[in-house]
Amino acid sequence: MIAEIVTVGEELLLGSTVNTNAAWLGERLDRLGFRTRRVVTVGDDLEAISAAVESSIGSSDLVVITGGLGPTHDDVTKKALADLLGVDLVIDPIVEEELRVRFERRGRPFTAGRRSMATLPEGFEAFSNPVGTAPGLFYVREGVRRCGVLVLPGVPYEMKAIVDKYADEIGRRLALGVKRLHRTFLTAGITENRLEEIVQDLIETRHPDVRFALLPDAKTGVRLRVSVDSKDAAEAKTHLDTVSEGVSQRLGTLVYGFDDDVLEDVVGRLLRESGLTLALAESCTGGLIADRITDVAGSSDYFKGCVVAYDNSVKMSLLGVSQDALERHGAVSGQVAVEMAAGCRKRLDAEIGVSATGIAGPGGGTPDKPVGTVYLGLSTHEKELAIKLHLTENRSLNKMLTSTAALNLIRRFVLKHD
Amino acid sequence: MIAEIVTVGEELLLGSTVNTNAAWLGERLDRLGFRTRRVVTVGDDLEAISAAVESSIGSSDLVVITGGLGPTHDDVTKKALADLLGVDLVIDPIVEEELRVRFERRGRPFTAGRRSMATLPEGFEAFSNPVGTAPGLFYVREGVRRCGVLVLPGVPYEMKAIVDKYADEIGRRLALGVKRLHRTFLTAGITENRLEEIVQDLIETRHPDVRFALLPDAKTGVRLRVSVDSKDAAEAKTHLDTVSEGVSQRLGTLVYGFDDDVLEDVVGRLLRESGLTLALAESCTGGLIADRITDVAGSSDYFKGCVVAYDNSVKMSLLGVSQDALERHGAVSGQVAVEMAAGCRKRLDAEIGVSATGIAGPGGGTPDKPVGTVYLGLSTHEKELAIKLHLTENRSLNKMLTSTAALNLIRRFVLKHD
Repeated sequence: MIAEIVTVGEELLLGSTVNTNAAWLGERLDRLGFRTRRVVTVGDDLEAISAAVESSIGSSDLVVITGGLGPTHDDVTKKALADLLGVDLVIDPIVEEELRVRFERRGRPFTAGRRSMATLPEGFEAFSNPVGTAPGLFYVREGVRRCGVLVLPGVPYEMKAIVDKYADEIGRRLALGVKRLHRTFLTAGITENRLEEIVQDLIETRHPDVRFALLPDAKTGVRLRVSVDSKDAAEAKTHLDTVSEGVSQRLGTLVYGFDDDVLEDVVGRLLRESGLTLALAESCTGGLIADRITDVAGSSDYFKGCVVAYDNSVKMSLLGVSQDALERHGAVSGQVAVEMAAGCRKRLDAEIGVSATGIAGPGGGTPDKPVGTVYLGLSTHEKELAIKLHLTENRSLNKMLTSTAALNLIRRFVLKHD
Repeated sequence: MIAEIVTVGEELLLGSTVNTNAAWLGERLDRLGFRTRRVVTVGDDLEAISAAVESSIGSSDLVVITGGLGPTHDDVTKKALADLLGVDLVIDPIVEEELRVRFERRGRPFTAGRRSMATLPEGFEAFSNPVGTAPGLFYVREGVRRCGVLVLPGVPYEMKAIVDKYADEIGRRLALGVKRLHRTFLTAGITENRLEEIVQDLIETRHPDVRFALLPDAKTGVRLRVSVDSKDAAEAKTHLDTVSEGVSQRLGTLVYGFDDDVLEDVVGRLLRESGLTLALAESCTGGLIADRITDVAGSSDYFKGCVVAYDNSVKMSLLGVSQDALERHGAVSGQVAVEMAAGCRKRLDAEIGVSATGIAGPGGGTPDKPVGTVYLGLSTHEKELAIKLHLTENRSLNKMLTSTAALNLIRRFVLKHD
């Protein structure tokens, strides 16, 4: 089943609003068994909306349109649909009555503009809006290819509420058959290329209904998504389980989670379960690791704090790094990383101390230690280690990659893999 | 001048990635004088990419395509363009050499997959990538309507870097006629509604060629963009100057910068010029203020470091906050904020100490101090102050709003406005 999405709004074209509706709908349609083939964004313009819908309606099973349903002059989606389908805009008396009651209850006059929200292209059905005024609209065009047309308000929480309320209903009307299952493997500590090599044989020998997608990201690490389409839910699950088993065998502990898991949460859960507390000492990351740790609600239970020791004098005074180590090995060294980790562990009274020191760039590189050279340190009362990373020439990317590697180091340590 | 954007990537259709590239490009194209008429998103599919580009290329002046340029099996944009235009994919020897050198310098093998990043459709020109490997591509199709085709990597910071580097060049190649001038006022410490009220009279009495846009954002603060279209550059400049003068008069020191200025840079420049050094003490922001300060290259010149005192024991041991203040006023109080600021200033040996302590949420609120209650503190050898903020119920939003307010507090202090 193929879906296409048409999002309407000048603010999306001008970039003053990011199109989060399209992402939300894409994910939700995927779960409902639709493959979203295309998203088209146009402005509040009759012809542009008509053209976008027309090019989708003949070749899809469902067209979802968001935006342009409100009462202001530039909300023209309904008119565009009426023009396209050669029907009139008519008042739906039930919707009109609902709106009248709703406005009166809130002590607001039922103006002509507000009444216009009760109009819909003839043949469309209203899906009432549980959290706002403009209803959604639904229509099934019969023909060589039956196609549903779902029209939703552009306000994200109203759009979501209507989809959540009517998803089953839409499925019934379109007599959906195909199921789509998917599982996303979240990894840290490996590049996209290397990960692809590891699962290459699975990609090459996959069943035609199985699809792989690699999604690299400095913050989440590389994600590997496996999807399976099938008319038979049990068969789809068997396929997905078989492929997932193979992926798990190959990736092992590189995988920190699945689907909507978040590395910060995973690390937090591990710390909480193990009863261990964490302190950080950051140089090149400038506080980003602590920022990510504290993005988790309740992190105060296991996170003591952090010293951002940007200046060498702070490394000595607040972390107890030795002048000897700084002079002999330099601030960017395994030795200093370990001393920073030990220092924050002791001074902040935590069980685990983790540190990062490196050259984020663009300045500060040397032939020996080019921009992108980073050391992570880890210290507990019985163990010390340092890891060297070779990252990129981009400052903000280096900060993010280092923070992800540090979170992964904590994860692996608590899991006793390192 | 009409632009259309084609964004390529299954992750965008599946909703696992929000299409921020389209928003960024829409805003940037607007500044360059293009009206973005349509954004089309398709998957990593030869035919879908070809169809999307074909439908744009005949009716636009510029088609911008992002995504699908990497070396993995599903990156097919270049092949789709070559098919559409009926040309071959060829190796660009200069790009190949650049890539070979870049990979060798990083000690990584120059595999066939990596070499494939040097291929481009015949007739295209490579725009070198200042921050990554895959180059951008540019091509001008002559014909009834001359149309530029700009192809960019999907990785946001690489895409942005190439556009920033080549924007003028693209304008020259396409011989742009209408000038669009704009100036964006960057503000901190004021809400969107209040800002709109202040400039309401200017919006109501504006010239028809002048446009205003309000762009709220937790990180940048509210931005006010003024745009002027004109075929006559001098006339446009006069309009823009007149309106800008009015805006400046009304907003005064709420404005921290213009256009591409970044609050972190502005604060850094002020600190550098004043010769003052900064230390931070963070609780609810968890390191985010330090992270933002250290996003600026060279920030080590004025930034000493930060203590993220998540645990009250750390507030006492590393910052010297008194048990008395914690017990009598609570960790979230003006008194503790000031003691934290004074503590980090003294212990990190800086001239200015700034602190943040508050209830980020979702837990921890009380009737007296609901979620979103935050205190900022500032301490110098001759001054101490605390500011109370009433923010939202959203944890990550509260962290970002607090960090912006803290940066603005530093700015206003160094400017001697507070």
